[in-house]
Amino acid sequence: MKPRVSIVMGSDSDLSIMSKSAAVLSDFRIRYEMIICSAHRSPAATHTYATALEKRGIEVVIAGAGGAAHLPGVIASWITIPVIGVPVFTSALHGVDSLYSIIAMPPGIPVATVGINAAVNAGLLAVEILSVSDASLRTSLRVYKKKLAGAVDQKNKKLQRRGYKAYLQSMEGKI
Amino acid sequence: MKPRVSIVMGSDSDLSIMSKSAAVLSDFRIRYEMIICSAHRSPAATHTYATALEKRGIEVVIAGAGGAAHLPGVIASWITIPVIGVPVFTSALHGVDSLYSIIAMPPGIPVATVGINAAVNAGLLAVEILSVSDASLRTSLRVYKKKLAGAVDQKNKKLQRRGYKAYLQSMEGKI
Amino acid sequence: MKPRVSIVMGSDSDLSIMSKSAAVLSDFRIRYEMIICSAHRSPAATHTYATALEKRGIEVVIAGAGGAAHLPGVIASWITIPVIGVPVFTSALHGVDSLYSIIAMPPGIPVATVGINAAVNAGLLAVEILSVSDASLRTSLRVYKKKLAGAVDQKNKKLQRRGYKAYLQSMEGKI
Amino acid sequence: MKPRVSIVMGSDSDLSIMSKSAAVLSDFRIRYEMIICSAHRSPAATHTYATALEKRGIEVVIAGAGGAAHLPGVIASWITIPVIGVPVFTSALHGVDSLYSIIAMPPGIPVATVGINAAVNAGLLAVEILSVSDASLRTSLRVYKKKLAGAVDQKNKKLQRRGYKAYLQSMEGKI
Amino acid sequence: MKPRVSIVMGSDSDLSIMSKSAAVLSDFRIRYEMIICSAHRSPAATHTYATALEKRGIEVVIAGAGGAAHLPGVIASWITIPVIGVPVFTSALHGVDSLYSIIAMPPGIPVATVGINAAVNAGLLAVEILSVSDASLRTSLRVYKKKLAGAVDQKNKKLQRRGYKAYLQSMEGKI
Amino acid sequence: MKPRVSIVMGSDSDLSIMSKSAAVLSDFRIRYEMIICSAHRSPAATHTYATALEKRGIEVVIAGAGGAAHLPGVIASWITIPVIGVPVFTSALHGVDSLYSIIAMPPGIPVATVGINAAVNAGLLAVEILSVSDASLRTSLRVYKKKLAGAVDQKNKKLQRRGYKAYLQSMEGKI
Amino acid sequence: MKPRVSIVMGSDSDLSIMSKSAAVLSDFRIRYEMIICSAHRSPAATHTYATALEKRGIEVVIAGAGGAAHLPGVIASWITIPVIGVPVFTSALHGVDSLYSIIAMPPGIPVATVGINAAVNAGLLAVEILSVSDASLRTSLRVYKKKLAGAVDQKNKKLQRRGYKAYLQSMEGKI
Amino acid sequence: MKPRVSIVMGSDSDLSIMSKSAAVLSDFRIRYEMIICSAHRSPAATHTYATALEKRGIEVVIAGAGGAAHLPGVIASWITIPVIGVPVFTSALHGVDSLYSIIAMPPGIPVATVGINAAVNAGLLAVEILSVSDASLRTSLRVYKKKLAGAVDQKNKKLQRRGYKAYLQSMEGKI
Repeated sequence: MKPRVSIVMGSDSDLSIMSKSAAVLSDFRIRYEMIICSAHRSPAATHTYATALEKRGIEVVIAGAGGAAHLPGVIASWITIPVIGVPVFTSALHGVDSLYSIIAMPPGIPVATVGINAAVNAGLLAVEILSVSDASLRTSLRVYKKKLAGAVDQKNKKLQRRGYKAYLQSMEGKI
Repeated sequence: MKPRVSIVMGSDSDLSIMSKSAAVLSDFRIRYEMIICSAHRSPAATHTYATALEKRGIEVVIAGAGGAAHLPGVIASWITIPVIGVPVFTSALHGVDSLYSIIAMPPGIPVATVGINAAVNAGLLAVEILSVSDASLRTSLRVYKKKLAGAVDQKNKKLQRRGYKAYLQSMEGKI
Repeated sequence: MKPRVSIVMGSDSDLSIMSKSAAVLSDFRIRYEMIICSAHRSPAATHTYATALEKRGIEVVIAGAGGAAHLPGVIASWITIPVIGVPVFTSALHGVDSLYSIIAMPPGIPVATVGINAAVNAGLLAVEILSVSDASLRTSLRVYKKKLAGAVDQKNKKLQRRGYKAYLQSMEGKI
Repeated sequence: MKPRVSIVMGSDSDLSIMSKSAAVLSDFRIRYEMIICSAHRSPAATHTYATALEKRGIEVVIAGAGGAAHLPGVIASWITIPVIGVPVFTSALHGVDSLYSIIAMPPGIPVATVGINAAVNAGLLAVEILSVSDASLRTSLRVYKKKLAGAVDQKNKKLQRRGYKAYLQSMEGKI
Repeated sequence: MKPRVSIVMGSDSDLSIMSKSAAVLSDFRIRYEMIICSAHRSPAATHTYATALEKRGIEVVIAGAGGAAHLPGVIASWITIPVIGVPVFTSALHGVDSLYSIIAMPPGIPVATVGINAAVNAGLLAVEILSVSDASLRTSLRVYKKKLAGAVDQKNKKLQRRGYKAYLQSMEGKI
Repeated sequence: MKPRVSIVMGSDSDLSIMSKSAAVLSDFRIRYEMIICSAHRSPAATHTYATALEKRGIEVVIAGAGGAAHLPGVIASWITIPVIGVPVFTSALHGVDSLYSIIAMPPGIPVATVGINAAVNAGLLAVEILSVSDASLRTSLRVYKKKLAGAVDQKNKKLQRRGYKAYLQSMEGKI
Repeated sequence: MKPRVSIVMGSDSDLSIMSKSAAVLSDFRIRYEMIICSAHRSPAATHTYATALEKRGIEVVIAGAGGAAHLPGVIASWITIPVIGVPVFTSALHGVDSLYSIIAMPPGIPVATVGINAAVNAGLLAVEILSVSDASLRTSLRVYKKKLAGAVDQKNKKLQRRGYKAYLQSMEGKI
Repeated sequence: MKPRVSIVMGSDSDLSIMSKSAAVLSDFRIRYEMIICSAHRSPAATHTYATALEKRGIEVVIAGAGGAAHLPGVIASWITIPVIGVPVFTSALHGVDSLYSIIAMPPGIPVATVGINAAVNAGLLAVEILSVSDASLRTSLRVYKKKLAGAVDQKNKKLQRRGYKAYLQSMEGKI
């Protein structure tokens, strides 16, 4: 079956981050493909890939890149499909270079940017976008959000029950 | 007829920026509503408004705010509809405060952030999201992008024809 | 007996920092409660908790959060009790995101912000606020400050007595 | 009658900002005094003033300063009264120097910091602190917050009634 | 005759800056062409233009762009000709976004970056690059540098002759 | 008579700032010379000037520069005379480039850096350095500091006498 | 045989970074020399070295430095040969000090700046500059770029073949 | 014998840094004292110490502090002796808070600021200041600078002799 979401990254050094988007999509049973192609080092492959996305029926693109992070914007320049950009952390400038390279797009070519390394949220944003016309995904998202709230509530209950000193000890024990 | 997109802002001082999102939606003939409510100064109104969005059938939210810009995240916390955040420029910190307040959301609650003051791109991103299940919007976006490219091409042709000195003079003449 | 101070945090990952506020309050024999609730992941619980604070007689709130750190501002939006915000360190932006998200509140809704991870000072600020109408707390604060000065003085005396080389060796020995 | 709040600033160039704290206190009928003394240029006067604050019965201090903004911290070092710091905007570093100089206090000596130039919020924070033991001030704060919410609501109603184009025109007309 | 240098920019709003590179090249009698094409808004034209540069015999490219400034890197990805990047000033982030987007290229695809808005230096760097195999250009550069030093020396002599007060008055008179 | 202090700047665009150092030295009746020479544009003149400073008996150097502000460090590399660096404000990076270029010197070659555009303080620092072996300068500095404190005190007295509203009106009247 | 490229650095602490430029030049069979001399700590040696570069026939200079990184600009001030600057990472300011010190050169004296620690790209930029008049180097660069693209393509094929989980495991296994 | 230089720090956590200033002074056989006193935690001791410095004949002060680093400025406010400020690295803001708190002093009260953690340069700057009226210290500084240049030259010779690969291996061997 055809993938609905494309997860693209410029290097396999981004894979450990970007795989979190894939995991989210799997949880919501959304088909995706995952591609390594570089805006700068393999521009022809990127060009071929980007310009075929619309015809292939991809519905949302998630693109992660670090440094002079052009991949999300370059893909967005060729398509009218929503592109979600994930700025990847960098050692010298801490991902601020990636963030500015992705978010400061000129009027006309938006990239939906999430936080530095925030590939989980990129995945969820893709689900939300698909849920606009998919009531069952919407329902799944509501269940997901309830679980999030429930998890916080469980932690609070544990804190009330055990007090912060025991809680901290239990956290250290986990590590 | 029901609005499909909600444009929310925390203050009428953001209106001149956020009205650009409205203008884009109008150009694409997408119904929207536009609301002033503040995450901090009118939290009850914001809460009431945000929690009703899903039932009312809003499909995308665009929220603009400046400074400790909580409005997009606060709305996103209540709904599963995609929320687009517009960080509004601020005088002291130049909108970096707004940007960080909007983009650095915790895992689970994404906000699709665009550039500082980039309300045009917020509007276009909303159109792209709606076009995922709307082929005619997709077509309109393609026409829009062709016009963008055409406008650049026209400027280049003018530059080739007239040279940069005459071009610069004509630009100054416009001002 | 009723707690006078509420220490709130958005995640148990903030607990090792925020527990320092609790320790300060304990030292000053001030009753507190400690809660985990997230502005974004458990908004309903946060809303219920925040809107009940005034009726329950809480006198000061200390709220810690990291990233798009909305918790202090969101709580402050619902109450007239002083809210102290603790920006928690983050890995990519080093807590500057947290700081800007907490401190840049709009006119009308102040948050008393302390330094990044400065939960000790948040606790002391709560004590100072309570001491405005509590002479015995004021006295305790004076004793505390004398101890602070005394501790510096002791270190200086040790430095004069032993010289910096021996002092540095003794510090390394401690580690 | 004795002032309850002290508003201190290092230079009369900060007066146009810091007078906003005074205006808030006046609105809440809280007595204050306003002093110009510089941590660096008139250290003896500052020392004399700071060390007398507790005996004189001042309950809250608001201190504003720009650049290497030591005034709030220097005053806080001498007293156990809560000190609210207002980082004043500076031309080169935009008040980030002021912010860091005020907020990054060592453990033991907190300063309750508000946003850059946020003297209105400094005044409100002082009112909130005094309201901890003053039910009528608490009531006044609730009225104030209702007015804030009401003002936002009025603007929203105007926007709904007139549309954004007429609203923007009316704003320009005001200028 | 064929141009040796290509000056490319993404928008005519960059023309007043980038024309300074053209003026430098004219001064050194180096043929250039000047093109407006956008990495994001006219990607097909940019692709066509970039991939033809080598065959057309262009020897150096100067590319200026602002914001998510991908143009220099995108062109560099297609060619082995040296690319000089000019980060153009932006209103919100002051060109730091442009600088980071241009300079932080991945290993393999360098862009020779100059300062924000430093189109004069971009032009001179192109001349220096061409002078590597052109002794007469090298000579012209030496003459240029002597003039630079001479101009500074003239100003110093004027300062010694007239004193700083008269010098400042003469500068104000010029404005 | 021989000058004791050298005030050096890279460009006459720095003259309006650096002349403030000259004015301070004049006030303290210290002989100075003022030179325009550029570390980058007139390196030979700078080299000749810097290497002659010790023999000529200059006792302190004040060097101002903006951008890649190498002048203070380059001069310091040739001499053992104390060098005071003045980072000059720049339009894009606001003098942070100048500050970092001057202050981050390697171990072995210090530059005594003052704030951005702080040429008054550079002049005073030179006076303080000369006062180390000149009791009458020390006395003049004490008089100067008393006047500083007195000026603050006068402003405070005016504020007490007239109130802040009249004070603000009188300030506006001055402009 | 004479070296064509000079690789200069201010300290042997930069050697592990700058040796990457040397490795690139070796790969392209370009002769280079490598020198340690400090703009600040050995200014006479630097001066002697820089002023001899043109006569010695060096065609491109690569200069790396950290902190107040004056070396590239100081060398550029004496010569008309293209100078490539490598800002070296620093512990406190993360190389932003180095970057600003190198890139913000005044009009007239360009330095071709690459990213923080980007010595590989500095080497490639030198090759590109030499390739302007050397067709065989140009050919080598094309081969190099094809390999770059091929390496990305190989990684993508591996990802398609094995899936991201196995890929990540294989990466961890390598470490 | 009386000390000529005072090295002051706010905490013994700064001792490992500030002891480098002491080591420099020892190398130049200059008597110093070293004191721990905090501008904020032991203000009375700091006040007593600072106001006695002039009478005690101290000629230069070196003050190191981190965070809201008021110590150098507070001491400078009381004396006319030159004060050298050392901004100490901090974990969250990397010493930028310390730097801004020390360098951005108001006109009238200079602090001679060195780089973050640059206590070696603070010591050397003190020596340079004392050398203004001490020819033998001046001579010692010249010897010191020659050694600095010689050490760089030795490293360069080793690099020429052994090549960079062997050099790097020898460096790793040292660690």
